Amino acid sequence: MMKANQQRYWDALMELGTVTEASLPYTRRSFSDTFLKGRQWIADRMQQLDMRVHVDPAGNLVGRLDGADSTRGVIAIGSHSDTVPGGGRFDGVAGVVAGLECVASLRERGIRLNHTLEVIDFLAEEPSEWGQSCIGSRGISGHLSDDILQCAHPQTGELLADAIVRMGGKPTSLVRREDIKAFFELHIEQGCVLENEALPIGIVSAIVGIIRVRLTFKGQAAHAGTTPMHMRSDALLAAAQTACDIRHFAARMSGEQPEHYVVATCGQFNVKPNASNVVPGFAEISVEMRSDHRPSMEALHRQLEKIAAEAAATYQVTLLSCETVTDTQPVVCAPQLMAHIRDASDSLGLPYKVMPSGAGHDAAFLSHISPSAMIFVPSKEGKSHCAQEWTSAEELAQGISVLIDAIERFDGAVNN
Amino acid sequence: MMKANQQRYWDALMELGTVTEASLPYTRRSFSDTFLKGRQWIADRMQQLDMRVHVDPAGNLVGRLDGADSTRGVIAIGSHSDTVPGGGRFDGVAGVVAGLECVASLRERGIRLNHTLEVIDFLAEEPSEWGQSCIGSRGISGHLSDDILQCAHPQTGELLADAIVRMGGKPTSLVRREDIKAFFELHIEQGCVLENEALPIGIVSAIVGIIRVRLTFKGQAAHAGTTPMHMRSDALLAAAQTACDIRHFAARMSGEQPEHYVVATCGQFNVKPNASNVVPGFAEISVEMRSDHRPSMEALHRQLEKIAAEAAATYQVTLLSCETVTDTQPVVCAPQLMAHIRDASDSLGLPYKVMPSGAGHDAAFLSHISPSAMIFVPSKEGKSHCAQEWTSAEELAQGISVLIDAIERFDGAVNN
Repeated sequence: MMKANQQRYWDALMELGTVTEASLPYTRRSFSDTFLKGRQWIADRMQQLDMRVHVDPAGNLVGRLDGADSTRGVIAIGSHSDTVPGGGRFDGVAGVVAGLECVASLRERGIRLNHTLEVIDFLAEEPSEWGQSCIGSRGISGHLSDDILQCAHPQTGELLADAIVRMGGKPTSLVRREDIKAFFELHIEQGCVLENEALPIGIVSAIVGIIRVRLTFKGQAAHAGTTPMHMRSDALLAAAQTACDIRHFAARMSGEQPEHYVVATCGQFNVKPNASNVVPGFAEISVEMRSDHRPSMEALHRQLEKIAAEAAATYQVTLLSCETVTDTQPVVCAPQLMAHIRDASDSLGLPYKVMPSGAGHDAAFLSHISPSAMIFVPSKEGKSHCAQEWTSAEELAQGISVLIDAIERFDGAVNN
Repeated sequence: MMKANQQRYWDALMELGTVTEASLPYTRRSFSDTFLKGRQWIADRMQQLDMRVHVDPAGNLVGRLDGADSTRGVIAIGSHSDTVPGGGRFDGVAGVVAGLECVASLRERGIRLNHTLEVIDFLAEEPSEWGQSCIGSRGISGHLSDDILQCAHPQTGELLADAIVRMGGKPTSLVRREDIKAFFELHIEQGCVLENEALPIGIVSAIVGIIRVRLTFKGQAAHAGTTPMHMRSDALLAAAQTACDIRHFAARMSGEQPEHYVVATCGQFNVKPNASNVVPGFAEISVEMRSDHRPSMEALHRQLEKIAAEAAATYQVTLLSCETVTDTQPVVCAPQLMAHIRDASDSLGLPYKVMPSGAGHDAAFLSHISPSAMIFVPSKEGKSHCAQEWTSAEELAQGISVLIDAIERFDGAVNN
């Protein structure tokens, strides 16, 4: 039997979806007035559910419901209500509203947990103008350094620390939380694996690490008519060759070791002067490599450097830079929480797939301070970060029912 | 003995170079006030040389010096005084000022030609906001169609025909000229072949034809983390593969048939959304193919279509379009004029190379109405369309001396 009320949840989610920048649905950028309006909506709901509401030092909105046994610590359910510009109505916020539905479901069934339950709307999970993602989950897990806090907004000059204060936080009082005993995050998959396999539930085994590299090639801009082929130093071609070669290497790795998730993407490609009749003298690309297996990430990174150097030599250009701009570790989800999610899915008769998350999430930071796990629900056509983002009401209710059941199992199963 | 006065020519060229948009040297955009100021300077010089000055129906500035025998027709020397934005002081204008130096040299040596001599500053050789190049040379050779004349400026809406009127032309009175018996254009090479081979003179054998193709690939934008390699439809990779493959094909053709000049260039490369963490769903590139040999151009074009279709298939994307946006024929220079240039070079002791022009020029249109030929002088490091464009005063004087000598040979050699 489903423990979530499908209609109640869906109505709430759609209502919160109407809180958007009117000119660019669906947009609630972190630190904006629209974002604060969305948060006010969430805080009101928390209060209607008799939760105590506060904003923590990292700027996270927290609703708290005391448990029967104050020595047991906290079960936290969370995700984020901010969006990318022109995003959807599900990424992040589906998991926050899922937390509210959990509380509502427990209430109407007269269940009081042993653990204290927190529903957390983490601040600024999406990259903001300050250049970092997961501000709130970094903040409570000891990963929000002074370097990050002292970053200035490129236009307004406002420091990130001051922006967090503006959201109600207090960065000078940040502490690494030790009281969370289990963290659960429900999130849309943002990929098409569950849809393709017609499965309602994804149990996340790990969250990938990311290495992001910016490569620049310098050749010599030259007239496309008067410069014979053998006299060229064409930066575009070196960049194009690198993009193709790293793709082939990653696809081969992926096929040869199916036990590990491996992807590599060249997503940015800029050339100068970018005119049809000029041999490009400069090219800049970004290559991103993700895996749930650190040695695979490092093998990809080494190969990228080799490929780029070879491409530069082939086309007589200089590999000006090959700079690592992001490097995060893969994170493994907590096996005991995954087991509860699996048991919950089984008891509800919902087939599932154990799968890595190719996207980063707040759960990756939470895993440093608490056993953490994630439940994925299907994304229609894998679409995300766009207005077409979609998961059906039924699929969401199934995911939330698994979430509630897993929490009840954790709460009663062990003496934490 | 050099027939050009090196200092007089250089001073004139440098003085005209000071007529530029102050904010972006060196810029005299066609149809601009700065362009008209440059033209006034040229017209004043023509008058000082006792030439009769007028603007023809196509908007070309023409200085005319009657010959001894009015039945012989016209020898024309010309090029263009307009520039690309942020261009140099040599491209085009070197050939116009060379015409003035010819007249000055003939005058001071007391030589009156049999033929009438015209020095022509062709209107708008560089592509303008109306999207076409070589407006003036098209105009007198029957290639300025009503379609082109009725084009509107994308910002101001002014019709090209009206802009030509503003320059002093009269497009309603356009006629194809039949009275030009020989056309000579001196131009900087805009490539590094002469410099690399340490040769002062290039005798142009042909002006390449150009096929320019715009290709668009449509894939599916997707999350770079959550989309496994085998589920992707990455438009960037299809474009990158096409750019590399057409380059390799052209380089091989070029090596296998050294008697023909063949180049292929991917100069523009744009992807969407162009974000580091998104698999690109759309890519647009331009590929330009040039050759002095029409069958080679067509072979390149066929191969490009094949390469693009194969790349699209490899990466599971759609080749949305493969549109030919330019297609011009290669043009062969007049052998009898080339012979005069060769004899002139020999008599002046200047080594030369017979070579194709990889760039388009007014001479390509003039060749439809008159025997036409071009003399190249070296470009330092092959640079052109930039402020660093450079040819030394000595190299220019050598090229102009060849030009004067070739004209005297043509004028006296045959009974035209």
